[in-house]
Amino acid sequence: MFDNDGTLWSEQPNYVQLVFAIDRVKALAPKHPEWRITQPFQAALEGDLLALRRQGEGGLLKLITATHAGMSTTDYSKIVSEWLSIAVHPTHKRPYTEMVYLPMLEVLSYFKKHGFKNYIVSGGGVEFMRPWSERVYGIPPEQVIGSSIKTKLVSRNGAPELIRLPEINFIDDKGEKPVAIHQFIGRRPIAAFGNSDGDLEMLQWVTAGSGARLGVIIHHTDNEREVAYDRKSSIGRLDKALDEAAIRNWLVVSMQSDWAQIFRK
Amino acid sequence: MFDNDGTLWSEQPNYVQLVFAIDRVKALAPKHPEWRITQPFQAALEGDLLALRRQGEGGLLKLITATHAGMSTTDYSKIVSEWLSIAVHPTHKRPYTEMVYLPMLEVLSYFKKHGFKNYIVSGGGVEFMRPWSERVYGIPPEQVIGSSIKTKLVSRNGAPELIRLPEINFIDDKGEKPVAIHQFIGRRPIAAFGNSDGDLEMLQWVTAGSGARLGVIIHHTDNEREVAYDRKSSIGRLDKALDEAAIRNWLVVSMQSDWAQIFRK
Repeated sequence: MFDNDGTLWSEQPNYVQLVFAIDRVKALAPKHPEWRITQPFQAALEGDLLALRRQGEGGLLKLITATHAGMSTTDYSKIVSEWLSIAVHPTHKRPYTEMVYLPMLEVLSYFKKHGFKNYIVSGGGVEFMRPWSERVYGIPPEQVIGSSIKTKLVSRNGAPELIRLPEINFIDDKGEKPVAIHQFIGRRPIAAFGNSDGDLEMLQWVTAGSGARLGVIIHHTDNEREVAYDRKSSIGRLDKALDEAAIRNWLVVSMQSDWAQIFRK
Repeated sequence: MFDNDGTLWSEQPNYVQLVFAIDRVKALAPKHPEWRITQPFQAALEGDLLALRRQGEGGLLKLITATHAGMSTTDYSKIVSEWLSIAVHPTHKRPYTEMVYLPMLEVLSYFKKHGFKNYIVSGGGVEFMRPWSERVYGIPPEQVIGSSIKTKLVSRNGAPELIRLPEINFIDDKGEKPVAIHQFIGRRPIAAFGNSDGDLEMLQWVTAGSGARLGVIIHHTDNEREVAYDRKSSIGRLDKALDEAAIRNWLVVSMQSDWAQIFRK
């Protein structure tokens, strides 16, 4: 089980999906003049990330449901793919799908080669990851678990289509990660990789199973090649899980000292 | 995508999971004296299937939440396995896991041999099928999609466990089958097998995709070796989907004339 943001790819300076949502607000704004004076849309339009953060999780969910719904699942997938093909990381100036950690790609392929099924278990939107997870990570869409909004089967010109509704279905974070894993897979996995307190319950649950278990925390310690952050970060805070790692014998990987190379070339 | 009840195994004279639920009511009854005079429990205790059916879907769900919840997912899985190891089909006098259709096992293994991933997509409880799907069908738990109740992560003697709550999470039937498939798999499958109107939307959605598609209906036409039923049956009614099969060119398989052998030896 692999968390995505901060574990497989960079989550700094902002979650990629948040950047996507902001760009979606900008693209849809001409049809929503009221957004210019309504939060969280105003903050998004003004690119004011601090104001956006002040809207809390409620504001974030409002942003997601307003910009990620109202289209078919097929159309949404296209929108994501198109956006990823042109969006560029603000400081590294590379596409986000290249902001993936080389050592983690090596771990993924090592497991795969030895007959394991790799899964992503992310707080991010499951449909935001599926269009590119196979190409970038070698993980097929059916092995991606994430947050989701509700969908509904409708008939469009006589053809059935799934339409994305502006309503949250499931938030795949913290204590819900084990719930989602069990719902999707029906058994307790034997290894879990995470980088933040959002992965704590998944790590606890996975490593509490019987037999050999592996818990790994990716610790962002490299301020030169990436961003150093942990206990006080507003994105990907790693605090309780770092304490627990010492007690539970989880492997803590220091990006600075353990990784010869961070990003894919 | 394979429906389970009536497509991979027999659903007559009653859904296997309903028989299980009734046996669970009997096992738990000593702790619930009020059940003797409360529906749907009274009907279950008296083995009065007609009275039980009169309670409708609401009664059925009440039965499920009262008997399938309150234990860990691990304990539930054990209860299911133990029950299946002793329960016997009322007329064929064989374990239910032997009441599976031989030609369907052949189809499953044919697909698997050719690199396909087989999935079960059933209105039945996902956790009711997962303990035996791999042994009986060669389908691993993570390729079983079904109805579910909610679960919650709790700490038991310091160890995290998922507890089954008496609350429905998802009913995987009719228009919800495509919704569930998309949620679990994230792409539109290319083949679907069903036997009732509960599979209609899945068949429509799967076969409406682009490229080659396969829709198959298993038609219960053999009253000697199995049970003949379709348009008016209260279990597994096949009516609209039979009409639509003719229009959409779905393959309708007659169990009587197309299947040399019905059950596994």
